[in-house]
Amino acid sequence: MQALTLDSRGPAVREHALVERPGEALLRPSIAGVCATDLELIEGYMGFEGVLGHEWVGVVERAPDAAWVGQRVVGDINCPCGACPTCRAGRPTHCPHRTVLGIQGRDGAFAEALSLPMGNLHRVPDGVSDEAAVFVEPLAAAIEIVQQVHVRPTDSVVVLGVGRLGQLCARVLALTGASVRGVSRNPARLELLPAGIGRATLDEATAELDMSRRADVVVDCTGSSAGLALATSMVRPRGTLVLKTTTHDLGAASPIPWVIDELTLVGSRCGPFAPALRMLAAGTVDPTPLISAEFRLSEGAQALARAAERDAVKVLLRM
Amino acid sequence: MQALTLDSRGPAVREHALVERPGEALLRPSIAGVCATDLELIEGYMGFEGVLGHEWVGVVERAPDAAWVGQRVVGDINCPCGACPTCRAGRPTHCPHRTVLGIQGRDGAFAEALSLPMGNLHRVPDGVSDEAAVFVEPLAAAIEIVQQVHVRPTDSVVVLGVGRLGQLCARVLALTGASVRGVSRNPARLELLPAGIGRATLDEATAELDMSRRADVVVDCTGSSAGLALATSMVRPRGTLVLKTTTHDLGAASPIPWVIDELTLVGSRCGPFAPALRMLAAGTVDPTPLISAEFRLSEGAQALARAAERDAVKVLLRM
Repeated sequence: MQALTLDSRGPAVREHALVERPGEALLRPSIAGVCATDLELIEGYMGFEGVLGHEWVGVVERAPDAAWVGQRVVGDINCPCGACPTCRAGRPTHCPHRTVLGIQGRDGAFAEALSLPMGNLHRVPDGVSDEAAVFVEPLAAAIEIVQQVHVRPTDSVVVLGVGRLGQLCARVLALTGASVRGVSRNPARLELLPAGIGRATLDEATAELDMSRRADVVVDCTGSSAGLALATSMVRPRGTLVLKTTTHDLGAASPIPWVIDELTLVGSRCGPFAPALRMLAAGTVDPTPLISAEFRLSEGAQALARAAERDAVKVLLRM
Repeated sequence: MQALTLDSRGPAVREHALVERPGEALLRPSIAGVCATDLELIEGYMGFEGVLGHEWVGVVERAPDAAWVGQRVVGDINCPCGACPTCRAGRPTHCPHRTVLGIQGRDGAFAEALSLPMGNLHRVPDGVSDEAAVFVEPLAAAIEIVQQVHVRPTDSVVVLGVGRLGQLCARVLALTGASVRGVSRNPARLELLPAGIGRATLDEATAELDMSRRADVVVDCTGSSAGLALATSMVRPRGTLVLKTTTHDLGAASPIPWVIDELTLVGSRCGPFAPALRMLAAGTVDPTPLISAEFRLSEGAQALARAAERDAVKVLLRM
């Protein structure tokens, strides 16, 4: 089959043998989305080689349970062993033996077909378009914040960085009733925030930093090593910093304010698919204005290049 | 009066004018304790100048309310304004206008007398000796961990670094019923841990690190920039790291495992005095074996030098 694969030569669309796994479903993706993690993998993060892509929606072609064949589905990206102490403790997404679709030990979705365990699949409700459903994986990652942290309706929340993930985080956090504000260096990205969500450029946000304006919760979605120190400066004593940025470099961050101000830092990764599908079905989150461009699978290299441009939010690949 | 003061010439016992503050109590300390923070202040931390010392027990000499005169007391070190938004939000120890005894804007307890607001005072029960009561302030800082984090009786807990503060943290955490283990480079310090608390040298602890041995909660009491990376390597996915170390340098720490493993980091500083006095009165925590040496106030410079030695735990000053 044709697939957008990463190997020592870099990313390219190549002929690639489908790895079929016994007991798993064979899936035909319709659309897939490019994530910042894909761009990091190309830079060497995780040392991954194989088919890229973990945001997708598609149709079940073959499955051990025939009732699933022909269903429109999305799929959890973590494939845990199910047997180790971490899995048995109820933390399967942290299974040390897990494979992760298009990220770790398992070919991804930028391909004509892919394989996932049956337990990973979620039916997409009829009212949810493919163009919305392809956002389920990053929307679930945004929902993971409110799965981990009790965000109260009276809280003030800053989402620092409103790119691919930050846009979804701001929308999900606003559903709590909290006062949510997106902060970005990039005014065009602020314009994408829906009504009801505050917006400030980074200069505006840092100019008015005093104790009374510090937020209860700050989410670092910058994807930048500068994000953690900036986020720290924006949160109140005993407030919560949510970390969505995976960067090795800590920039100017210092643990002294974390201790002195008794901050809580919460690392946050993948989230639950079922509430993401409910929000899309209810229409309380509409991610489709975030689509910047669409390419064919054969144009995979162009899609990656477009996604890396500063003004791009979500770039889709249609198979 | 005589006082152990810090100024641009360094720390020394000098004649120092007592600052009396209207509406506050005048206190005569009986004993005071040297804390790692005192040693950091001498190195320039916080830019403090004045009388050092914030761990003390003593007697009320003068007070607006005569009922307090002659009482044996200890005192909260944070003196908040009581009127600002942070104070009104119930976070007085984080008041941005606060002074802090012997640390920030207020002379400390290594002196013949000191002044504190009435609201900071706590009577010491008759059954609690001065030698135990002088530990109330650091014991309260250890109790702050269980004020902030729900440590469960079935949890496994590592206290990394069992010096002055780590010894008290291990004792308080063990009261929850959790399986607590102290880890130190220094075998002599491990010997000071009471029965029922596990112990491992750093080499032992790192040699056996695999997923099944990672702890639910790890407390960094190392006081070292290496502590945070070490603590990160010892905690399980979705576990909690408690930060007690104030060091600007993050050493080898990287935020990637915090995000990928969805860790919670909790900065932890000063704690509540009332439960500390209850634990001392009940005898469930006995800090007195931690006393390494005792000096007169006039020997203040020697006391600081002794506290800086590798084998010293708690060094006391008797006024």
